[in-house]
Amino acid sequence: MKPTEGRKRIVIEEIQPSVNDGRYPAKRILGDLIEITAAIFGDGHDHVAARLLYRHASQRKTQATPFAALTNDLWSATFTADRLGLWYFTIEAWIDHFDTWTHDLAKRLAAQTDSAQDIPLALRIGANHLDAVALRAKAKSADARKLTAAAADLRRLADQNLALYDSPITTDLIALVAKYPDLGFATKYSTELPLWIDRERARFSSWYELFPRSSSLNPGHHGTLRDVAARVPEISAMGFDVLYMPPIHPIGTAFRKGRNNSTTPEPNDVGSPWAIGAPEGGHTAILPALGTLADFDALVHTAQSHNIDIALDIAFQCSPDHPWVAAHPAWFSHRPDGTIQYAENPPKKYQDIYPLNFESSDWRGLWDALFGVFKFWIDRGVRVFRVDNPHTKALPFWEWCIAEVHKTTPDALFLAEAFTRPHVMYSLAKGGFSQSYTYFTWRNTKADLIEYFEEICNPPVSDFFRPNVWPNTPDILHAQFQIDDLAQRRSIFQQRVILATTLSSNYGIYGPAYELLEGRPAKPAAGKTSSEEYLDSEKYQLRHWNRDDPNSIAPLITQLNRIRHENPAVQRNENLHFHTIANDNLLVYSKSSSDYTNIILTVVNLDPINPQSGIVDLALDKLNLPWDATFIVEDLLTGASYTWSGQYNYVALTPATTAHIFRITRT
Amino acid sequence: MKPTEGRKRIVIEEIQPSVNDGRYPAKRILGDLIEITAAIFGDGHDHVAARLLYRHASQRKTQATPFAALTNDLWSATFTADRLGLWYFTIEAWIDHFDTWTHDLAKRLAAQTDSAQDIPLALRIGANHLDAVALRAKAKSADARKLTAAAADLRRLADQNLALYDSPITTDLIALVAKYPDLGFATKYSTELPLWIDRERARFSSWYELFPRSSSLNPGHHGTLRDVAARVPEISAMGFDVLYMPPIHPIGTAFRKGRNNSTTPEPNDVGSPWAIGAPEGGHTAILPALGTLADFDALVHTAQSHNIDIALDIAFQCSPDHPWVAAHPAWFSHRPDGTIQYAENPPKKYQDIYPLNFESSDWRGLWDALFGVFKFWIDRGVRVFRVDNPHTKALPFWEWCIAEVHKTTPDALFLAEAFTRPHVMYSLAKGGFSQSYTYFTWRNTKADLIEYFEEICNPPVSDFFRPNVWPNTPDILHAQFQIDDLAQRRSIFQQRVILATTLSSNYGIYGPAYELLEGRPAKPAAGKTSSEEYLDSEKYQLRHWNRDDPNSIAPLITQLNRIRHENPAVQRNENLHFHTIANDNLLVYSKSSSDYTNIILTVVNLDPINPQSGIVDLALDKLNLPWDATFIVEDLLTGASYTWSGQYNYVALTPATTAHIFRITRT
Repeated sequence: MKPTEGRKRIVIEEIQPSVNDGRYPAKRILGDLIEITAAIFGDGHDHVAARLLYRHASQRKTQATPFAALTNDLWSATFTADRLGLWYFTIEAWIDHFDTWTHDLAKRLAAQTDSAQDIPLALRIGANHLDAVALRAKAKSADARKLTAAAADLRRLADQNLALYDSPITTDLIALVAKYPDLGFATKYSTELPLWIDRERARFSSWYELFPRSSSLNPGHHGTLRDVAARVPEISAMGFDVLYMPPIHPIGTAFRKGRNNSTTPEPNDVGSPWAIGAPEGGHTAILPALGTLADFDALVHTAQSHNIDIALDIAFQCSPDHPWVAAHPAWFSHRPDGTIQYAENPPKKYQDIYPLNFESSDWRGLWDALFGVFKFWIDRGVRVFRVDNPHTKALPFWEWCIAEVHKTTPDALFLAEAFTRPHVMYSLAKGGFSQSYTYFTWRNTKADLIEYFEEICNPPVSDFFRPNVWPNTPDILHAQFQIDDLAQRRSIFQQRVILATTLSSNYGIYGPAYELLEGRPAKPAAGKTSSEEYLDSEKYQLRHWNRDDPNSIAPLITQLNRIRHENPAVQRNENLHFHTIANDNLLVYSKSSSDYTNIILTVVNLDPINPQSGIVDLALDKLNLPWDATFIVEDLLTGASYTWSGQYNYVALTPATTAHIFRITRT
Repeated sequence: MKPTEGRKRIVIEEIQPSVNDGRYPAKRILGDLIEITAAIFGDGHDHVAARLLYRHASQRKTQATPFAALTNDLWSATFTADRLGLWYFTIEAWIDHFDTWTHDLAKRLAAQTDSAQDIPLALRIGANHLDAVALRAKAKSADARKLTAAAADLRRLADQNLALYDSPITTDLIALVAKYPDLGFATKYSTELPLWIDRERARFSSWYELFPRSSSLNPGHHGTLRDVAARVPEISAMGFDVLYMPPIHPIGTAFRKGRNNSTTPEPNDVGSPWAIGAPEGGHTAILPALGTLADFDALVHTAQSHNIDIALDIAFQCSPDHPWVAAHPAWFSHRPDGTIQYAENPPKKYQDIYPLNFESSDWRGLWDALFGVFKFWIDRGVRVFRVDNPHTKALPFWEWCIAEVHKTTPDALFLAEAFTRPHVMYSLAKGGFSQSYTYFTWRNTKADLIEYFEEICNPPVSDFFRPNVWPNTPDILHAQFQIDDLAQRRSIFQQRVILATTLSSNYGIYGPAYELLEGRPAKPAAGKTSSEEYLDSEKYQLRHWNRDDPNSIAPLITQLNRIRHENPAVQRNENLHFHTIANDNLLVYSKSSSDYTNIILTVVNLDPINPQSGIVDLALDKLNLPWDATFIVEDLLTGASYTWSGQYNYVALTPATTAHIFRITRT
């Protein structure tokens, strides 16, 4: 069957950014200059023109901006996203007959001496084009008059038939014609593609996780939200901008876990905060020992005054004591003996947790209730959510729920705590999560780090997935940290936080365990595998941390956060480039601001035991330096400066110094 | 807004093959085992199952075949395309609760000695699953009875509560359950994706181009279609299976070109066959000097009896004398002076050619007429068309026209003579062209050949674009052939046809110019550029070729075609692999049949002047050989055999021998 209009001759394809061909939005940041590229072409020799049509989802009227040709039929257009939330864009392209004619005329004029060229006829053809433009411009009568006059000029020139060597077409006339493109046979791309615009913190954030109940300054006392508020100035001074707390809700008593995950708890054991729900309430209540909703509001307010976001831990699961268990039995799975199915991954059992059943006949009610949890905390000023195990809840739920939140609260951010297979992690990101945990913790060799960060910092992944890298979490004490020797342990803790802060614009630590170099595992290494659980884990008990420990690396972390705030280069990921060095224990990489006014080159010693040295082989083009450049590298950790020149330069690092973070300036 | 059914928990993405996300069909060949892969996954730990649904476009009912899991959430399913034409496929996937339960039960049974496991309860849950399956099977009462009995068995086992160590679930029961999947919450991919199934010759063909008017055995006589028919046995004996003729239609006299493209022809000059149309007729008529439609029919019949396809040259353009010019003035562009716009690319003019105007107000009539040209020749038995400059006609026209032809004639093949930018060439292939000319002619260095063939022989390009490589055409005598020294010229002619026949499963030559080593250009090289036009080109005059020339490389070409027919490995492209050799003048590559029963390793000396030698570094895994293999390499050109072993083996070639085409066999 023929198309409705067979004279639409342009093909538009390979549009970027585009996630699953527009099925999901690509992600960008407020204020970004957003570049859209596409292959745009037609048959034959006619010139092509195209424009980008874009709009915020709340508006029906589109704005337009022209595409400029790159090479090989690829085109580029840019616009600035000046509003949070969902945007749409599409592309319209057409044959630009006037532009074709203008260029042909120039070629005819240049060729007159070699071969006969009927210039007057060519001028008359141009006059006809201008008549057509004037007709399209008729609503703007001044422009139409100018165009008609220009057409008359061309015809007069043709009548005079004088020798003509310079084109009579001025840039003013070309600009005037461009105002009235001939869209009669224009091709419009079949769909609008979505973009999601987040606030800056989605791309650049520094997270600090702590257990509120361990935040009392008095050993043995149950910490409160007020204790947390008292710590906010210190956390702010360290340079963090997100303060994340594990669940703060009432904790169930049925099958409560004791210290070190014991199934036979002592009467005064505090239980796991992830066993959510008790007679006092569920996901919208606060554990009385932590304080009141008023205390919570005060904490949010204190945090806001330090430009810190409070991040809540949203764990959609229930203790057997959660009010939903009695009120909504349909939201849980029932077994043939009438009991509710607890969490299990045979043969392991987690009897203190009831998972929610996303195949419930009342899935609509369940979805609404879960959405209501976000809504409740949003209404109390929370804008950042760390979602626990989102990959064990239905993916379509997340896509709906996050979109629903974003409709009214486009500044809400969601961090997916998903450590699972790549497709599932990426699918959560496509479905709306702003940031995601990563495999960083288990990428420990030079080759593994390079491979992984090249995957997640470049398109297509970087268009939808934003890594948030954590050297540790309450669940993950990687074997590399489980070292008795203090100097070695300190070196590895330094190394991993330097990698985290300079490789990824989003990172976080679970403190104070991190800065205090906590490395004791729940079970010592057995064979090749060791437990990744902490000994005396805060998940099951209070801990009192000695923040004045002289071994604390809090000063280094403070310094790293300051470097991050002062250097735009490390506040984004797409600019990451690994440089060559012939030493498997040295990792070298740079990040540059898009205008190259800020360039950071990091060299990390991955060996916590031995000094390492080598010759860095710099890709100078990635640093915007010519081959013969002489430049200053200033170590932002030590303040020392060195003069380097050209591609090859020597570096040496000990386990104690761990890394150079160089800022590069031209001499 | 919530989805209609929120319990559909599976994501299906990354479907392959898929051209522009299903906008265009991927291409395969009749009888191919077609593999469809996709990423298929859900949330949590539940097991997933999926099936491929596929159908020929003429049928509404789909067939189904199960997917099998590969790694990392990728799945694969295969089916055999047993019918030409358009097919559709899509994917349906669901949570397989019974499979999850079966695996969990096995884990529970294995873990009983370590920890308490409530086996009877697990058995009762399984029985409930089987009840549900029985309900779905109720239309098949025998199966339903078996399932109900199996459920009862599980419940009896549970009641007995005896020690149980082996799973009671038999493979027979698993197969029975698999017949009745629970599709209630199955996810179906949003669209059907298209596949186009061609006949074998679309993938494997050997083309011979000749000018019918030069085919007379009598020097100076205008050749006829009968002369061509008389040559068919010889062309068949050389091993060609497509005989392609430049346009055979009446030739215009207005602005007729003389010998060597002269604009001042002699009265008896025959003109260019591409200046189509005269009072005797246009695209559906035959030049009287060539013969009659009956002669044409006889030629088609003779060719068919030798399993040769006649390929017509479809050039959609008109001489000023074409009947369409008077009958359909709306199909042409008119200038302000009332004349019709001839072809020009300022400052060049082609006054003997009127292009068709695809922006005509009567584009529908024009499309129908052009389709009618194909239809006319299809009705006379033609199934192969070489389309001249398709990139100067509207792309949407081709997509419609080829689909329209294919509706009734799915065995029709279209070769695009497009030498233009990559996007346009690929777009023609996506739009329906079965094969395409390539940049092969201008890929002359080892690096360029490797880069280009790796691009066009692998997905995504190989899913829609089939190269047909030509060492020469009547328009293109590459500078490398323009060599006076006979030995050197012969070496380069040998080299290029060996490359063509072994790199690409589709190839063609313009003969007898090729086998007779015709290398004289229209104009000698001026500076760095030389004309690619032949001196005394057949495009403008008759030529008489001395086929008995002792320098003819027809015997080599015959041998190459025989090798191609006898070795399935070289009848396809996706299996091409380049091997390493530290000599820029030696190119080494292999092709293997999918079962590795046929492996061809080709070594070509790209230097027509000097002998070259080197150590081949074989990627043995691409040859299905172990690292310590000893194997025979038999040179199919000379008959000589050598015993090779392992990865490194020595080769040496002179300009005269040019190449080894080794068939590899294990000792």
